[in-house]
Amino acid sequence: MEYKFSDRVQSLKPSAIREIFKYAADPEVVSLSAGNPSPEAFPVKEIEEISKKLFEDNPIGVLQYGISEGYPLLRSALTEYMKEKHNVGTDEDDILITTGAQQIMDLTAKALVNEGDVIITEAPSFIGSLNTFRSYNAKLVGVPVESDGMDMTALENALKENKNSKIIYTIPNFQNPSGITMSLEKRKKMYALAKEYGVLILEDNPYGDLRYSGEYVPCIKSLDTEGIVIYAGSMSKVISPGMRVAYVIAPKPVFQKLVVCKQSNDVHTNMWAQMVCYEFMTKYDFDGHLEKLRRIYSKKAQYMMDLMDEYLVPLGITYSKITGGLFTMCSLPKYVDMPQFCKDAVLNKVCVVPGNAFLTDESLECHTFRVNFSTPTDEQLEKGIKLLAETAKKFIK
Amino acid sequence: MEYKFSDRVQSLKPSAIREIFKYAADPEVVSLSAGNPSPEAFPVKEIEEISKKLFEDNPIGVLQYGISEGYPLLRSALTEYMKEKHNVGTDEDDILITTGAQQIMDLTAKALVNEGDVIITEAPSFIGSLNTFRSYNAKLVGVPVESDGMDMTALENALKENKNSKIIYTIPNFQNPSGITMSLEKRKKMYALAKEYGVLILEDNPYGDLRYSGEYVPCIKSLDTEGIVIYAGSMSKVISPGMRVAYVIAPKPVFQKLVVCKQSNDVHTNMWAQMVCYEFMTKYDFDGHLEKLRRIYSKKAQYMMDLMDEYLVPLGITYSKITGGLFTMCSLPKYVDMPQFCKDAVLNKVCVVPGNAFLTDESLECHTFRVNFSTPTDEQLEKGIKLLAETAKKFIK
Repeated sequence: MEYKFSDRVQSLKPSAIREIFKYAADPEVVSLSAGNPSPEAFPVKEIEEISKKLFEDNPIGVLQYGISEGYPLLRSALTEYMKEKHNVGTDEDDILITTGAQQIMDLTAKALVNEGDVIITEAPSFIGSLNTFRSYNAKLVGVPVESDGMDMTALENALKENKNSKIIYTIPNFQNPSGITMSLEKRKKMYALAKEYGVLILEDNPYGDLRYSGEYVPCIKSLDTEGIVIYAGSMSKVISPGMRVAYVIAPKPVFQKLVVCKQSNDVHTNMWAQMVCYEFMTKYDFDGHLEKLRRIYSKKAQYMMDLMDEYLVPLGITYSKITGGLFTMCSLPKYVDMPQFCKDAVLNKVCVVPGNAFLTDESLECHTFRVNFSTPTDEQLEKGIKLLAETAKKFIK
Repeated sequence: MEYKFSDRVQSLKPSAIREIFKYAADPEVVSLSAGNPSPEAFPVKEIEEISKKLFEDNPIGVLQYGISEGYPLLRSALTEYMKEKHNVGTDEDDILITTGAQQIMDLTAKALVNEGDVIITEAPSFIGSLNTFRSYNAKLVGVPVESDGMDMTALENALKENKNSKIIYTIPNFQNPSGITMSLEKRKKMYALAKEYGVLILEDNPYGDLRYSGEYVPCIKSLDTEGIVIYAGSMSKVISPGMRVAYVIAPKPVFQKLVVCKQSNDVHTNMWAQMVCYEFMTKYDFDGHLEKLRRIYSKKAQYMMDLMDEYLVPLGITYSKITGGLFTMCSLPKYVDMPQFCKDAVLNKVCVVPGNAFLTDESLECHTFRVNFSTPTDEQLEKGIKLLAETAKKFIK
């Protein structure tokens, strides 16, 4: 049989980083390439207790079909929480529970983007989202990220040049992969530009609660008086990614289309996971849990920065200071062949992600690589950074 | 803001049955319109026990990210089970765990169907799958269902007339909505036609284990020597639908594309649910559980047939004998206005699904309605069928 696949998946090339991830599966390799929460960050005891109680109180609710919009109590709790804590969501919005935030990218692209339409993204940006957009044959236009977020002049040019732009996709807080947070000034500017050009903003905020230093910056959605921002929140980094629970707060007409797409996609999200999230958010100390996560991760972030200061910075490798989230980007001197460096690193038993994997055009010249500090133990972090330094020495003049 | 949605979702019209389902939410209305498993069919105690043990033994496995292909132990167990029990799957196939079987329809359409390509389906067929195919702007061509499955002459004509046919979608066992099972002869014929015309078969088999009478008929996938059948299995009707766990066994080249689509869709399926299914299948009496389900449902099916024989058949309403699954179709005399009958029924506090909802062209004349017997209690069944008879009397000459 000769298989004829759709045009949209034929354009999905296997990612350049897949080859490298194969090596990362080797237990001898220190992986700084993942984005998994730290095992110590999971509220295991609480979820175990909730799960037990759910089976005592409402087993049929856990096991029976639910509705596509999501578990009503979780929807209400999240609506209230996001309104109170982040001023996100108005009476003109509604909330849909999804099977992880990846599904929000899928449903949003499906509902809003025709093949060939443009999605403007930060460059670099989260590879998972880029691939989802690619899977709908969207044209990706990358806008460079500066130390305070997207270059707004370049964004305006991109909007001018691409009349069929439908969405500006942004991760405003502790962006994956760069770790950068967009300033309030730029958020306001982005909102004004989106309004001016009649384009929606997809604000992806999985790391917002994981701030370790600096001042809170309001969500773009909190500025939304005209119904142009779709807000994507996730439980993956604050409760558990294996549960696959996220939520999207969107203007009602968009919400209605997202629900139709959700229904034809997977009917509804796992009920147990939705109920566990609801119980944990409302009957346990959720704020205290977030505080605990920030303690765990800020300590790990500081430890990695200390290691990088000691071993990488003297070699001319720079990084952006970690103020939140799970990642930072390192920059090699311009004369270093970054892809070769990443390959040598993995042969040297440490795995990082080459920066070009996060570009809308992977073939562009690139001198960065992404490192993660949430998954490795402190011992692994130390070993990993030392191995990176050892690898770098061969490349540094 | 004026929202511009994609062409594919603009073509998704709100279904004619949604209006009717609104009434079904009224607790005073007896719903014969759902497709939910009976609450007594859930292995509550076992899942509670498994869940408790999972949190004792491997909480991080439950809560951490998994891989897109699915939980490896569940994949192996299902591969072995389907091979042994149904002769489904060869070394040329691979298995992917999905978030319910609806997602299999989504991933398959995404990977194989360009906008405007044809998917041939039974007419009537499962509305959820039809809507998923519509959401990719597939052109649906319906082939009438006879008492032993799809009309093979009409299928061959459809293949001849539609050179851009990509998939034949079939529910061969206890089809939703008709309850009909395709004969072995027709399965062989369908396979031969698919091979001849270079089209893949998507075999959707959620009800296969729920046979109450008659002889087992082999799966189409068990005939597959050329890699042209994609087999969709589901835990929704045999363990729990709220878990959202299904699996697709497909030729490796197709499997690989489905995995890429799955990854960009929701990364992976809820880990807890996958682990629970694995433990239940392998460490409990799964066959005994299926036997129990057949006992529960065959009793309910017989009870509904007795009620229909007593109250509906004398009015000239016919139905196809229930041999498995969760549904049957009733046929009104041709002179009865079926949509009006269904509307009057719901006002009379009993809800059924009008047959045209399951057609590729909902506007066609239609005299059938679907009834479900798995969700209502026996009391509700009796009340519902009596209310249907009461409603019918106004229409019957």
